[in-house]
Amino acid sequence: MGTRWSTKSTAEHILEQAKAGVMKLKAASIDPHLVVVLVGDDPASHVYVRHKVAACEELGIRSTKIALPADVAADALLSEVMRLNRDASVHGILVQMPLPKHIDCDAVIRAIDPDKDVDGFHPINVGRLALGQPGLFPCTPMGVMALLKQTVTDLSGRRALVIGRSAIVGKPMAHLLLHANCTVTVSHSRTVDHQAVCREADIVIVAVGRPGLVDGGWLKPGSWVVDVGINEIKDPALAEKLLDGKRLDRFRATGRALVGDVNYRSALDVAELVTPVPGGVGKLTIAQLMLNTVTATELQR
Amino acid sequence: MGTRWSTKSTAEHILEQAKAGVMKLKAASIDPHLVVVLVGDDPASHVYVRHKVAACEELGIRSTKIALPADVAADALLSEVMRLNRDASVHGILVQMPLPKHIDCDAVIRAIDPDKDVDGFHPINVGRLALGQPGLFPCTPMGVMALLKQTVTDLSGRRALVIGRSAIVGKPMAHLLLHANCTVTVSHSRTVDHQAVCREADIVIVAVGRPGLVDGGWLKPGSWVVDVGINEIKDPALAEKLLDGKRLDRFRATGRALVGDVNYRSALDVAELVTPVPGGVGKLTIAQLMLNTVTATELQR
Repeated sequence: MGTRWSTKSTAEHILEQAKAGVMKLKAASIDPHLVVVLVGDDPASHVYVRHKVAACEELGIRSTKIALPADVAADALLSEVMRLNRDASVHGILVQMPLPKHIDCDAVIRAIDPDKDVDGFHPINVGRLALGQPGLFPCTPMGVMALLKQTVTDLSGRRALVIGRSAIVGKPMAHLLLHANCTVTVSHSRTVDHQAVCREADIVIVAVGRPGLVDGGWLKPGSWVVDVGINEIKDPALAEKLLDGKRLDRFRATGRALVGDVNYRSALDVAELVTPVPGGVGKLTIAQLMLNTVTATELQR
Repeated sequence: MGTRWSTKSTAEHILEQAKAGVMKLKAASIDPHLVVVLVGDDPASHVYVRHKVAACEELGIRSTKIALPADVAADALLSEVMRLNRDASVHGILVQMPLPKHIDCDAVIRAIDPDKDVDGFHPINVGRLALGQPGLFPCTPMGVMALLKQTVTDLSGRRALVIGRSAIVGKPMAHLLLHANCTVTVSHSRTVDHQAVCREADIVIVAVGRPGLVDGGWLKPGSWVVDVGINEIKDPALAEKLLDGKRLDRFRATGRALVGDVNYRSALDVAELVTPVPGGVGKLTIAQLMLNTVTATELQR
């Protein structure tokens, strides 16, 4: 029987590092400043941005939210990014994804000054990560690495599986695990006999956006499981399968629930550690964004 | 009993593509031009550069070799690269590695215009590859992908193992296999139970620089093995193990031989296809360099 893998102390540790950085910068009369650009009215995006701004406030990082209408012209958005690049009082620029369909989101990412790219999505930061060079790297994988390294100092030789090959989580996660000397496998929707692949892994990171995909039966006994997924479910049958106790009661009352990509209950029967959803990886991501903002500010000194 | 995996027809196919590109460019009065910068007197580097120049000649690609002394100042080399960046008659720039120790080779790579970076080593090209965006990508992995795709159209779901995590071969190879929908594992010197990891793989790409590391006993029956290694051996015991027939006779006469990272003889007992060394992947690399030079020229139109 495994344990709920709490991310709390790792998130606090990351925030302490960020706070120490902020104090040092302020002592040198530098006021770290994150600008979040929000386009349109996606409710989830609004929630995320609110959390990011609140985290900045808590740490004494200056933050500015720029809200643009959903029908903003692509050129206008690019000009805004360029203006922020030039503004020396701005150290971090985050354009909240997803963007409306008429905007080429790769072009927006490419327009951000790589040294202000706190999301770590710019191709040059992607390249730096792959090459093991210094840069700004995606918050979720960086936060997950901190969790792993706080749990065990040396990851050398462990077999790690990353399920999902996104640019935001899966691929950068694979590079970070490789730098930590894990033997790394990346699997995805086209993987054959996914369960057998999963059962080889000491460490499983799941980031695919499919509620409850990874079942206890997929896992190697004693493995560690990090659930990056966050999915809203409304299907009662799925809720009965994935939830129990109070969470199931709440689903019955509201008709909806947030779940991860892992069947948490059945995973706990086999794995040693499983991060919960919600309340797991999300905390790490926000904490790492604060640290990335500090790193970006330092890069620009 | 497996078969020698000939790279000849794939190399020819890549060269045909390059040739068609050259003809099209020349028809538009553009004369593709590769400049190779060679620093110092490393004998292997001189041989490689000679092969590259000869391949250009064969295809009608203009080539220039710039030879600089081993003690050239780092700044002088960077100025030379910058001059080539500005020269509109130069479409591809290749700085032959390795560089003398007093030169920061990452700085030289970063100085090359990414659109002239025919080796695909610039961080922005590394990032583009990871992101699946267009760019210039490393020749050896691109050539190996061409070999795989000429052997089977759809690689989806195959388990591929890349042994070695270099920036030149291992990591870009992993990204290309992932784009081709393989389930991809990367292993390396810190991997535990390497044989078991290898035995899971349908496709094995080896690029570590350790003569005969991968033995037939490591392989899954019927697997395909690409040997990227090229090592000079002088040890008679190793030669007895890895060579036979005429090649062993030649070793006995000369005291040296070139071998790959795979024990070719024992691998053939288990695998379906194994590329030879020498005469395997090298051909693909040179052919792909020609195609990359054409691609670079097209990027600059």
